Amino acid sequence: MVDTRPLVPPALDPATVPSRTGTAYPEPFRAPCEARAKQALGNELGIQTFGVNLVRLEPGSWSSQRHWHTRQDEFVFVLEGESTLITDVGEQLLRPGMAAGFPAGKADAHHLVNRTGRVAVYLEVGDRTPDDEVNYPDIDMRHAAFAFRRKNGEKY
Amino acid sequence: MVDTRPLVPPALDPATVPSRTGTAYPEPFRAPCEARAKQALGNELGIQTFGVNLVRLEPGSWSSQRHWHTRQDEFVFVLEGESTLITDVGEQLLRPGMAAGFPAGKADAHHLVNRTGRVAVYLEVGDRTPDDEVNYPDIDMRHAAFAFRRKNGEKY
Repeated sequence: MVDTRPLVPPALDPATVPSRTGTAYPEPFRAPCEARAKQALGNELGIQTFGVNLVRLEPGSWSSQRHWHTRQDEFVFVLEGESTLITDVGEQLLRPGMAAGFPAGKADAHHLVNRTGRVAVYLEVGDRTPDDEVNYPDIDMRHAAFAFRRKNGEKY
Repeated sequence: MVDTRPLVPPALDPATVPSRTGTAYPEPFRAPCEARAKQALGNELGIQTFGVNLVRLEPGSWSSQRHWHTRQDEFVFVLEGESTLITDVGEQLLRPGMAAGFPAGKADAHHLVNRTGRVAVYLEVGDRTPDDEVNYPDIDMRHAAFAFRRKNGEKY
């Protein structure tokens, strides 16, 4: 007999978690990330020292602008579909079951791009070390002191 | 054309990561966890502030003795098979795609038990906050100051 009772904490069915679509980037950097949807599983479960998001990338969508963090470690694990990981070593196709990791302070910017015709789903984990900054080498943007800024420091 | 080149950092094919089977528990608490195999994906990728393990539980195996952490947040996401999550709220069956989270300091002990006839696979994430202690309410054991101890503090 199948148990059909809903899960209760500390268990969680991700289908019950609200999804946040889009990006907080300033213009003109938003378009490729507008169809990115995230569900904050870690927050929903009361986890504080790291975040865990279940991310859906629609066909054509990017996970983010290509970036690296000064203090935050990041980890990705692909669950469904295929995404192209773009870093300084080139492009690599990540299929379900494949992982990637981005140690804090390593100046190799990265993002995932869904170049296929179907949705890609992955888990992303990132810590919450204070005073993290994010560098975006391809564009005139960085994130520091709680704001997106031009490389000269001016806020967007 | 399928790209069959092996993944290189920062990407990772978990099949290339060594697997560690068994447990560091003292006797008589080892038996149910002897058939637990972990691959340390986060370590392999150079991630330091949190650990990410890909865990395989053979039929009948436990993830751990039932426990809770004083300072470490933990997160679990089921990839294959089914495991029973046992906590103070009772038993819940976790199927692929289901998650669970255990905030630091919450005195609700937990473990996963594979009661099925096939392997269960899940991802586990835990931070590395210093001075963490682990409490095992069902047995005369705790982990503190880098050692497994009886509840009276004596080392095993």
